[in-house]
Amino acid sequence: MDLEIVTIGTELLLGFTLDSNAAEIAQAVAAVGARVAGHTTVGDAGPAIHEAVAGALRRSGFVITTGGLGPTKDDVTKRAIADIFDAPLELDEAYLERLRERFAAMGRGPMPETNRCQAEVPRGATVLPNRKGTAPGLWMEGPPGTAVLLPGVPFEMRALMRDEVVPRLEDRLQRSGGPLRVIRSRILRTTGIAESRLAEILGELEATLAPATLAYLPQIGGVDLRFTVWGQPPDRADRALERAISAARAHLGTCWYGADDDDLAAVVLELLCRDGLRLCVAESCTGGLVGSRLTAIPGSSAVFVGGVISYANESKIHDLGVPAELIEAHGAVSEVVAEAMVDGALRRFGADAGVAVTGIAGPSGGTLEKPVGTVCLSARVRNVRRTVSVRLPGGRDQIRGRAAQAALNLVRLAHGEAKAAGGP
Amino acid sequence: MDLEIVTIGTELLLGFTLDSNAAEIAQAVAAVGARVAGHTTVGDAGPAIHEAVAGALRRSGFVITTGGLGPTKDDVTKRAIADIFDAPLELDEAYLERLRERFAAMGRGPMPETNRCQAEVPRGATVLPNRKGTAPGLWMEGPPGTAVLLPGVPFEMRALMRDEVVPRLEDRLQRSGGPLRVIRSRILRTTGIAESRLAEILGELEATLAPATLAYLPQIGGVDLRFTVWGQPPDRADRALERAISAARAHLGTCWYGADDDDLAAVVLELLCRDGLRLCVAESCTGGLVGSRLTAIPGSSAVFVGGVISYANESKIHDLGVPAELIEAHGAVSEVVAEAMVDGALRRFGADAGVAVTGIAGPSGGTLEKPVGTVCLSARVRNVRRTVSVRLPGGRDQIRGRAAQAALNLVRLAHGEAKAAGGP
Repeated sequence: MDLEIVTIGTELLLGFTLDSNAAEIAQAVAAVGARVAGHTTVGDAGPAIHEAVAGALRRSGFVITTGGLGPTKDDVTKRAIADIFDAPLELDEAYLERLRERFAAMGRGPMPETNRCQAEVPRGATVLPNRKGTAPGLWMEGPPGTAVLLPGVPFEMRALMRDEVVPRLEDRLQRSGGPLRVIRSRILRTTGIAESRLAEILGELEATLAPATLAYLPQIGGVDLRFTVWGQPPDRADRALERAISAARAHLGTCWYGADDDDLAAVVLELLCRDGLRLCVAESCTGGLVGSRLTAIPGSSAVFVGGVISYANESKIHDLGVPAELIEAHGAVSEVVAEAMVDGALRRFGADAGVAVTGIAGPSGGTLEKPVGTVCLSARVRNVRRTVSVRLPGGRDQIRGRAAQAALNLVRLAHGEAKAAGGP
Repeated sequence: MDLEIVTIGTELLLGFTLDSNAAEIAQAVAAVGARVAGHTTVGDAGPAIHEAVAGALRRSGFVITTGGLGPTKDDVTKRAIADIFDAPLELDEAYLERLRERFAAMGRGPMPETNRCQAEVPRGATVLPNRKGTAPGLWMEGPPGTAVLLPGVPFEMRALMRDEVVPRLEDRLQRSGGPLRVIRSRILRTTGIAESRLAEILGELEATLAPATLAYLPQIGGVDLRFTVWGQPPDRADRALERAISAARAHLGTCWYGADDDDLAAVVLELLCRDGLRLCVAESCTGGLVGSRLTAIPGSSAVFVGGVISYANESKIHDLGVPAELIEAHGAVSEVVAEAMVDGALRRFGADAGVAVTGIAGPSGGTLEKPVGTVCLSARVRNVRRTVSVRLPGGRDQIRGRAAQAALNLVRLAHGEAKAAGGP
């Protein structure tokens, strides 16, 4: 089953707003077995909407639109599409009542009269109730095909897709009787390993994973491995993905840290929490980014005690007890200074685990021996210490982002080593 | 002058990749006086590309495409569009030579034969040299109209738009002789003030700013005011925007902190740098986010000394010298504790300016008296102190983001006060 998406809004067309709705809808419909055959964006103009939607219906018989359902004169989607279906707009008294109640419940006075038009519904259309906003979704069927009209506000669109549109799509696909074929994908997240090395490790495995295919997606925090199954029955797709993920995990050893949306900071906090360990940080070039990533996770206070942002050398000396001679002899960006920083933080915070980062994020400050991107990291979990020096690519933001990820990963690896050694 | 955009890629259509190219191109062409009349996305399939590009050319006579110019068999854009122009592909020996040199310069061995097809050019097309990748841009003119083919990699597309496409568009618009009409916009950034309050302040002014129109864009860090001029000659547009920005600044007093892409962290660093002041931070609920935003700015080490992430209460006591009785009597989230935190940080780092943040980011930890979102902040610049309590809306990420922005803003305001008082 093919369908097309039409996103409506002059703001989209002018590039003032980035269109994320189309991508979300595409993923949602592919996962249940429909295929997005095309996507068009048009401005808030009746004739352009009419042409785009009529064309999509002619080609595929099914269109999902977003946008242009608000109460202002710019919002012309409903009228333009009702025209295609030859359906006059009629006032839906029940929906009007719900709108009035909604405004009353918000306690900001009675419903403005401009909102009244949102209760006008093309004859024969099904109203898809919008619990998060005032514009209802609409499901229209007729000789031109099927048109689903959704609001453009992303969280309203998302809720309507999930609660109203996807179930109806699944139902229609099942009733159509043909064998259901879906596109589904899952992600395995790796860090600290280059794309080319991953390809070497997984090269031979890849051919055995069919029908799952593998794509390498380099991100700031590491390479994501996306396994996708195209055009298979749902059960077969899910089994193939599960098998592919398991096989890849086995080949990758400690290089992978999670799946799908997993955040490395959350993974690290959970590992330490399970063992009752407390964590601190000592940050120079990342300037608080490691602490910020950890404290972004709800409940992090059970593990994370605090940290020192020792951006200036004086702070490394005074706040972390790094010997001034060490900095003089080896430079602030050196493995010995990283080790002294983490030791100082562990003493100061009385924590069981810690990590220190010192490096040159650029754009200036690089030397021949230590170019921009040079970062030294040291992690300790109880008595296990791991110290590394890396040369990170990219501009200042990328180097800092990669350094923060490397710091979290070093804690994860040190924790694994401590576990393997019988502790902590 | 109208044009359409066609973005090409099965990854885009399936929603695996978010399409940012179309928005960037739309803004760039609107700024020089062209209008994007439509945008279509199709997969990597010759017939679909052919239909979308031919349709766009039929409607507007001018199309810009991105994607499908790589060396693999998926990359079929060039052939599909050459067909529309009835132009056979011919090997461009000069470009082939440049490609070979490019591979030689990268030191990774000779050019793979698969890349040879990237030097094939439709007869009569102008090659737009791509300094950042291997796929050349192409500019084709003929009876169907004008088609500009750009690679899909965003930074390659961006460089080609700026260096090759926009100058040719400007030239064509000038040669066309008609009066040039552009869409241009500028942004004034505010923080610490609600959208409704801004609307009250600017309400009467708004009508006097024509032809500039005003849009309120609420962001995590504050409300951006976007002034846009539609369909005016470039000089008149720029003058109207300048006048609108100046007038709004005068009405807003200290509520605005910058324009366009200005980052509040950079603004604060520059203010302090000019006066030779050094800055430190003491962060609880933001957990390093304020330090991270400051150190994201190149050259921040001239001003930023460091900070303490005092996430646990023990750290507030031991590392910042906050009296335990103060925490016991008023709670860790209180104005007096915020003040003691910043005083402790200033002593520890010997800095001239500092800011402390303590709050409840949620989702748990809220009470009736201090619900989730309660944040206390205290800033000092020399002898001027500003302390505030705020109730920030949103989830954990939003509360933390807003708290970090509020902390930076408090330093800006305290610095302004210190200047007004004759120091620092």
